[in-house]
Amino acid sequence: MKDEKRPEWYEPKKADFFSSTLKPGVSGNDPGDEYPVKTGRFVKKTANRKIDPYTLAVEIRGGNRTALAKGITLIESNAERDFQYAQLLLQHLLTDSGNSIRIGITGVPGAGKSTFIESFGSYLCDLGHKVAVLAVDPTSTVTGGSILGDKTRMEKLARNPRAFIRPSPSGGKLGGVHRKTRETMLICEAAGFDVILVETVGVGQSEVIVRDMVDFFLLLVLTGAGDELQGMKKGIMELADCVIVNKADGQNEQAAKKTKEEYNRILPFLQPATKGWQTTALTSSALHDKGNDEIWNRISNFKSLTKESGVFEERRRFQIKEWLNDLIIDQLQMNFFQHPAVKSLLPKIKNEVISGNTPVASGVDELFKAYFEARK
Amino acid sequence: MKDEKRPEWYEPKKADFFSSTLKPGVSGNDPGDEYPVKTGRFVKKTANRKIDPYTLAVEIRGGNRTALAKGITLIESNAERDFQYAQLLLQHLLTDSGNSIRIGITGVPGAGKSTFIESFGSYLCDLGHKVAVLAVDPTSTVTGGSILGDKTRMEKLARNPRAFIRPSPSGGKLGGVHRKTRETMLICEAAGFDVILVETVGVGQSEVIVRDMVDFFLLLVLTGAGDELQGMKKGIMELADCVIVNKADGQNEQAAKKTKEEYNRILPFLQPATKGWQTTALTSSALHDKGNDEIWNRISNFKSLTKESGVFEERRRFQIKEWLNDLIIDQLQMNFFQHPAVKSLLPKIKNEVISGNTPVASGVDELFKAYFEARK
Repeated sequence: MKDEKRPEWYEPKKADFFSSTLKPGVSGNDPGDEYPVKTGRFVKKTANRKIDPYTLAVEIRGGNRTALAKGITLIESNAERDFQYAQLLLQHLLTDSGNSIRIGITGVPGAGKSTFIESFGSYLCDLGHKVAVLAVDPTSTVTGGSILGDKTRMEKLARNPRAFIRPSPSGGKLGGVHRKTRETMLICEAAGFDVILVETVGVGQSEVIVRDMVDFFLLLVLTGAGDELQGMKKGIMELADCVIVNKADGQNEQAAKKTKEEYNRILPFLQPATKGWQTTALTSSALHDKGNDEIWNRISNFKSLTKESGVFEERRRFQIKEWLNDLIIDQLQMNFFQHPAVKSLLPKIKNEVISGNTPVASGVDELFKAYFEARK
Repeated sequence: MKDEKRPEWYEPKKADFFSSTLKPGVSGNDPGDEYPVKTGRFVKKTANRKIDPYTLAVEIRGGNRTALAKGITLIESNAERDFQYAQLLLQHLLTDSGNSIRIGITGVPGAGKSTFIESFGSYLCDLGHKVAVLAVDPTSTVTGGSILGDKTRMEKLARNPRAFIRPSPSGGKLGGVHRKTRETMLICEAAGFDVILVETVGVGQSEVIVRDMVDFFLLLVLTGAGDELQGMKKGIMELADCVIVNKADGQNEQAAKKTKEEYNRILPFLQPATKGWQTTALTSSALHDKGNDEIWNRISNFKSLTKESGVFEERRRFQIKEWLNDLIIDQLQMNFFQHPAVKSLLPKIKNEVISGNTPVASGVDELFKAYFEARK
């Protein structure tokens, strides 16, 4: 098997790279010269060449926001060399990560997610917390847009010195975006942020992906539960640890309360998202900063209850194992499906199998034969 | 890459095997002499060496039950040589498969699945249908037992000349069992069976697997919907095209009707399993053969409605594509995770990653490095 058969961006060129001993400030730390920077259509941006991961880690731990932004840019980079730097940086910061409550937030478009995050985030900052806001946006990988791309949506929170807002990473498949958001979360934790809010839109698979990276999952909905419940993907409700009926203000307040009660009648019939925790509904008026204390109370109760029962740590360990597994499977599939031998043969096999001319297992057999033959 | 690095049972030894021209009754058809029979711990049983797939296909199409049983045994065999024979057999029968309604049946233990299948299957035979009963049993792969293993459970149906009962294939992972059941279904269709009932227990992932191989999915439940709904995995209800409250007889009849109504109140709030079809509940007394006509009516309506809308064929095409994809991913994972290099390294990486000493992407990187190095 020759080198050019491997996926370009993945395989490191230096075999013992991660096992090498690293010391701060020593120039030997910089493996950069041995890593030619690939510039292809997948490379959106490359981080600063002159990065010393150890120094950067120290600065991030010290609360240096410029260093934090630099670190995240490094992680989000699609350049091969940056991947190695980013992993070194993470290696240095891992021991300081994990000390936060990770909260996922989803909701149908128009449910007021950004207004809610602005209000709830500011409330938490006032309580003395440091709040990082990240996003996983399946649409941004397609359109290039981003749910948090428009920073003006959270002007107040963005100006808060205790808050840090980072839009969804762009470029690559959702799986890749997923990895980047998880790693960004770890860096933010090492930088001292103790509440991580991960926003996502309630479409596609992004809410499942976000559920797999957070401790607590909030679902934002609007009044009109009847219609809402009919139209909404029921799977989403079963991911939620708390349902929030937003925009409970003015003329809408009574309707929101009624909707909350309707949800509270349905929720006990659904599979709970977290063992030993009954998901319930609350109302919120993000516009008037109302409901934040009740929501934070729920989350705090959840945290102490699941920490005591061991469910909290169990979920985190499970999430890491799943993450490892997901990355392996992503990589296996990429190696296979991106291989020229498979790419040229697959459409033919697919047609034969669907038209009923070839048994499925025979088609698979033929594909693997071609794949391994080409890799020889 | 050397041959011994490949999974033993998968890679065919003769490159142009499937593309070779085959003629009936010609001894050149038998590729057996070139395929040494592997006998290892995965080989549970091997089919008759002297099989001519073409002749067997003709016999199966002609309604020969011994040939049908022989063909299924061939498919269920874990021997490498039998895999090639089985694929040839399928190749010959594919054009005659597909002309059936495939019905999945699940339910909690004690819901009376076998009594229901006996009653419903006999009813269909009386209407002139030919009924094949297959099973997907996740427990049989672990315990060696099988939900349909005890043939005495369906004595009446087993004696019916228009019915054919096949217990769950044993041996191998659930993914492998899954493949075998799908292929067995195709052979039964080629043998003229126009109703395929696939039984599974409502635990684990088996009901999702069965949903992916059938046109219509029945969920059997008992009275006491309140408790039932609380305890049952809600995901299962969203897979069902029809919920049947069984054991609606004697003193239980009124309670069953009440339960049916409770289900009919909840079901409209759930995600429908099939586009354009509202899942509803019915009652049944398999013991007294009551309710079968109403259930068959529902299924017939479903069939004509989805055939007209194109949803029927769309789902079948989708299922074949998913099947192809699933088999590829199974195979990729088996190649990787069964590789000695990965097997010896993975526990270490897992520990490092969970304990927070190694970033997840670095761990994956290291695994793939070892894997590709060993395959060189």
